[in-house]
Amino acid sequence: MLIVIRNALAVLPQGDADVIGRHTIYINEDKIVGIDERPADFAEEDAHIIDGTDRLVIPGLVNAHTHTYMSMMRNCADDLSFMDWLFNRVDPIEGKLLPEDAYWGSLLGQIEMIRSGTTTFNDMQMHIHQTTKAVRESGMRAVICRGLVGGDYDRNDIRLQQALEEMEEGRECSRLSFRLGPHAPYTCGPDYLRMVADVAKEKGLGIHIHLAESVTESENMRKDHDCTPIEYALSAGIFDVPTIAAHCVQLSEKDIKILADHNVSVVTNPASNMKLGNGFAPVPEMMAAGINVCLGTDGAASNNAQNMFREMGYLSMIHKGTHATPQCIGAPEVFRAATINGAKALGLNTGSIEKGKKADLAILRLDVPSMMPNNNLLAALCYSANGSEVDTVIIDGRIVMEGGELKTIDEERVYSEIRSMCSRLGL
Amino acid sequence: MLIVIRNALAVLPQGDADVIGRHTIYINEDKIVGIDERPADFAEEDAHIIDGTDRLVIPGLVNAHTHTYMSMMRNCADDLSFMDWLFNRVDPIEGKLLPEDAYWGSLLGQIEMIRSGTTTFNDMQMHIHQTTKAVRESGMRAVICRGLVGGDYDRNDIRLQQALEEMEEGRECSRLSFRLGPHAPYTCGPDYLRMVADVAKEKGLGIHIHLAESVTESENMRKDHDCTPIEYALSAGIFDVPTIAAHCVQLSEKDIKILADHNVSVVTNPASNMKLGNGFAPVPEMMAAGINVCLGTDGAASNNAQNMFREMGYLSMIHKGTHATPQCIGAPEVFRAATINGAKALGLNTGSIEKGKKADLAILRLDVPSMMPNNNLLAALCYSANGSEVDTVIIDGRIVMEGGELKTIDEERVYSEIRSMCSRLGL
Repeated sequence: MLIVIRNALAVLPQGDADVIGRHTIYINEDKIVGIDERPADFAEEDAHIIDGTDRLVIPGLVNAHTHTYMSMMRNCADDLSFMDWLFNRVDPIEGKLLPEDAYWGSLLGQIEMIRSGTTTFNDMQMHIHQTTKAVRESGMRAVICRGLVGGDYDRNDIRLQQALEEMEEGRECSRLSFRLGPHAPYTCGPDYLRMVADVAKEKGLGIHIHLAESVTESENMRKDHDCTPIEYALSAGIFDVPTIAAHCVQLSEKDIKILADHNVSVVTNPASNMKLGNGFAPVPEMMAAGINVCLGTDGAASNNAQNMFREMGYLSMIHKGTHATPQCIGAPEVFRAATINGAKALGLNTGSIEKGKKADLAILRLDVPSMMPNNNLLAALCYSANGSEVDTVIIDGRIVMEGGELKTIDEERVYSEIRSMCSRLGL
Repeated sequence: MLIVIRNALAVLPQGDADVIGRHTIYINEDKIVGIDERPADFAEEDAHIIDGTDRLVIPGLVNAHTHTYMSMMRNCADDLSFMDWLFNRVDPIEGKLLPEDAYWGSLLGQIEMIRSGTTTFNDMQMHIHQTTKAVRESGMRAVICRGLVGGDYDRNDIRLQQALEEMEEGRECSRLSFRLGPHAPYTCGPDYLRMVADVAKEKGLGIHIHLAESVTESENMRKDHDCTPIEYALSAGIFDVPTIAAHCVQLSEKDIKILADHNVSVVTNPASNMKLGNGFAPVPEMMAAGINVCLGTDGAASNNAQNMFREMGYLSMIHKGTHATPQCIGAPEVFRAATINGAKALGLNTGSIEKGKKADLAILRLDVPSMMPNNNLLAALCYSANGSEVDTVIIDGRIVMEGGELKTIDEERVYSEIRSMCSRLGL
């Protein structure tokens, strides 16, 4: 279906900055095919027209680190320390999950993401075929990484085999792509990490890993291996392939240099890091070092929202507080962390409104109090919007939400399944 | 009008905690007249019935420190240091404001507050009669404090006279009450503060003041008066009357003891404090000392939202980060800071759902992703809700919003006036 978004304010890239201007955007199949210029073969009278009055068009947000299947665990594991949270609360629930629970959990997370303007997410999951099934139905764009844990250099590792099998099966959906997801230095031994890195190199796959999240992780790493988690991953060869490292809270200056030198993309998850008492990642320092910093929500068990506007709010605020200066990070950098930086990290042709890019867009209402006055809208996106301004969402050229109504997911059904599941799981 | 909220989940106080249960709530005139028990003279068939299915009823939120008239300055003064922000950006715009600009600005802030479940606000304003006029129309409950600045012990101070005059005029509206609002130690000399404290004592008025907001304020106070801002206010007699102190970021241990010993209520404004680079108030320490800590948004020029859900998110998260432990503050304390603590500080019979209290309530949808699963809803209010879940708002027994539709304010008209105003002011 041809789509025209007529005469709307839109956030467009201009060099290293983003600028807001009034434009008409033409979409054909999965791509943006024209901005202001109507493509020659584009018959507007056959198109679906979206009126841009009182609307702001932004590139769909890229949630660069989450675990959507965990959404049923929202608000069930609060105010616990990191290791207590993971091993005593989350893992036991995980152990009781059925495969289809992960499917419904992922759909719940995707409803929340679509409703708040996210069009792409990078997911580390533990239940093969479930998140991919949910993505096929929801219409979202996703990078799927089956979480891998182990100790030996074992190429027959069952989880790795599952991951590779899922990749084969996912080839036919253009919105799906895949990475290898070794979980973390504290759950993957050095030989196992080396094996995963070798397989990634051979198959041309990227890696998605948790690194340097908690003080405990860093202390144990120092005790057991006399290095930092970053040095551990480096020596295992992880950074020889394109790597997305989530968290990176506990970093030395040398760690930052290693990440920068190896073009590792870092996903900061401010809500999760605060909520688990892990602190604040050195985001201004990473940005100053030239690291591609992306933004993610992390899973609902540790955030507890999958709303990137909330996350942009945290990212834009907390470092001004910790650094005692409002100038250390601003809305322009935060918005890029939530869009184009994530797209770059994931190797996807999305994350900005440009001709030839995938048509992944969110359209926000401007006739709402949080966006009023309609000045400095890049600031509004970080400092006053809450995600509920999102009215219409287009992913891969398909309208998945219009006027606040989801087109691809039966919300009532999902909520009903989540209720039954929580009752069964004792949540 | 009689109102019945039938069979809804509701947050009710039980001793020092809040508990969630299913209840039917009866409202007559301005009060909650029954919870589960139908009052004898209550004819349900004559009542306005609100179905509680998939709804959560909470006490209306109390925004304990803001400047609603500044809402037109949203997103116009970002990423500036505190003194630069105040004296070089905000003050010049202030100087150009017409009285009616303050009226429309306040209405914009009130739209945002009502839509996100706030029913009461404590406002320091500079344009006499404008915020009160807006409150009369909006149906909100408000405590109005005309900002006072000066150097001498002058009981004929023009701003003080205006404040007293406004109080007389406001007597006839039961939703309005008043305090004296000496602005801050850096804008009020010791003699002036002493005069304001004396007038407050004589007239039985409370005080609302900014204290210990920035490092610069504390440094200058040390240089000029060899004391802290808290000690300065103490020696001027401010704490001899019921005082609400906004910010209190830069506090010594002795300051905390002074505030506790004098029953000063402190309003923490986490977003504003971060955004201006002022840092993090010692909230867990103040709570441990027994101080009544309330929550506020501050004005839209420094936040930039008037959404208390956003603020509850910040308050529940940031101290877990700065203190490196998730246990230092939790959803129960944050929710009380946003409700009953503010009501106590302001001396109002609101802030909790109890028989005999003012009927100030917000009703949230539970059939939305941020509240799903419907477990641990106190946690959901802090960690996953964003304010858009609020569907219906009752203030003083009057429905001011129902099903997302405002009943008291013409939103279109307000937005239109704000647009013209910003164009005139060059914002």
